[in-house]
Amino acid sequence: MTKFMAVVEYDGTAYHGWQLQKALPTIQGRIEDALERILGTPTRVHGSGRTDAGVHAVGQVAHFVSNWSRSVEELKRGCNALLPPDITVRKLEPAPEDFHARHSAHSKTYIYKILNLPLRSPLNRLYSWHVQSELDLQSMNRAAEYLVGTHDFAAFGSPTEGTPSTVRRVLETAWLRGQPLGLLCFNIRGTGFLRYMVRSIVGTLARVGSGKLSTSEFEAILSSCDRSRSGPAAPPHGLYLQSVNYEGDACDAKSSCVSV
Amino acid sequence: MTKFMAVVEYDGTAYHGWQLQKALPTIQGRIEDALERILGTPTRVHGSGRTDAGVHAVGQVAHFVSNWSRSVEELKRGCNALLPPDITVRKLEPAPEDFHARHSAHSKTYIYKILNLPLRSPLNRLYSWHVQSELDLQSMNRAAEYLVGTHDFAAFGSPTEGTPSTVRRVLETAWLRGQPLGLLCFNIRGTGFLRYMVRSIVGTLARVGSGKLSTSEFEAILSSCDRSRSGPAAPPHGLYLQSVNYEGDACDAKSSCVSV
Repeated sequence: MTKFMAVVEYDGTAYHGWQLQKALPTIQGRIEDALERILGTPTRVHGSGRTDAGVHAVGQVAHFVSNWSRSVEELKRGCNALLPPDITVRKLEPAPEDFHARHSAHSKTYIYKILNLPLRSPLNRLYSWHVQSELDLQSMNRAAEYLVGTHDFAAFGSPTEGTPSTVRRVLETAWLRGQPLGLLCFNIRGTGFLRYMVRSIVGTLARVGSGKLSTSEFEAILSSCDRSRSGPAAPPHGLYLQSVNYEGDACDAKSSCVSV
Repeated sequence: MTKFMAVVEYDGTAYHGWQLQKALPTIQGRIEDALERILGTPTRVHGSGRTDAGVHAVGQVAHFVSNWSRSVEELKRGCNALLPPDITVRKLEPAPEDFHARHSAHSKTYIYKILNLPLRSPLNRLYSWHVQSELDLQSMNRAAEYLVGTHDFAAFGSPTEGTPSTVRRVLETAWLRGQPLGLLCFNIRGTGFLRYMVRSIVGTLARVGSGKLSTSEFEAILSSCDRSRSGPAAPPHGLYLQSVNYEGDACDAKSSCVSV
């Protein structure tokens, strides 16, 4: 038996998130279907974590175990031939026996994209959150600095399955301007994230950017650990799981800011 | 009665092109429907030209005539409220009585986007043509220079309705590298284009880029005026009508190269 590590890109638009759900299209489900057809046996795929319905990924990571004996390149080609066009296995390689997509991860990087223009853009509508009122990037960056470090993030999300604690460590945050005109990208890297955490942070930071909250009010919301005080979560279609980072990976949250 | 000029952005994915067709969704049809609901009377919309099924536009231009007496801003807001999210009126303004979206146009700029990577990208699949084999941008740029000037482009397209001639004038061409990695953008500005001309040119230039044709063979295809000698047309979803340029407009075919 060999353990394999896969890096997966997907457009989350058509899916009910990563995690397998009966009778609903999910990314995990599609990948397991493809593997079963190639390997001839049901194969459980373990992701680095869930992504919610509508959320995209540039670099979700998953592992699985198989007795596949031909080349890994052939297995990757087979997967991509059977996967729908909105899911692609970008990388597939044998992994050490003790590798675990979730437990071995040191950090994850998410990117959230806002299109900050008076008018909606048809060509960007599926891949960024359209915010009409002008956002002040400087104050959003100042507020986001409060997130860096180890904090109880209960104000911004709910515990994930199996981990009741709401304490997490954020390593880096950065808002960047990009292309096309009006595109703002929020990069956030952390050792772990609560459910809805990035979307809830972005929804609250957008209130800072539009002047509805001061940066110190943002800090107070973080400290309050009170979910009812944070802003409404930003919609899922602006969110990307950019990368899952393991021992020895180079990490840079400050990637370029371009649409899709 | 006032003449109005509209600049329209659309995602062509769901449409059978710009031009009205019975019982099929088209951009023109959707805009005329929205205007009829606002103005209370059927209103014919005249585009600068057709775009084919699946082709996108950042700056299609159209005109129409109406006895609308309230503000133009109100009419624009009304249109956008009634149009589906994949069509937006970016600009709406009163136009001189003799303005005609097609006849008054001095030139048009199209952009064609290729994603040149070994693997397909789910997040870019609707907005660029995925070409796996590595393309040589330099030879594609050299070949594209032959297009500049007044030529019979019969090798690359068919005449448009009402204009039997296949002679057109191309003003500028440029291939650019962009973001994300692997994105190539072909910018072409001309005073007019045949049907399928840009897609047929790009399909043939891709054969130059992959070494299947030399630049001089490309020139010979252009000179031959023989449609059967040009490459298969590139698919519609990589093509964007970027702008329609009128008297006094600043034109620059060398816009930035970013996805959507």
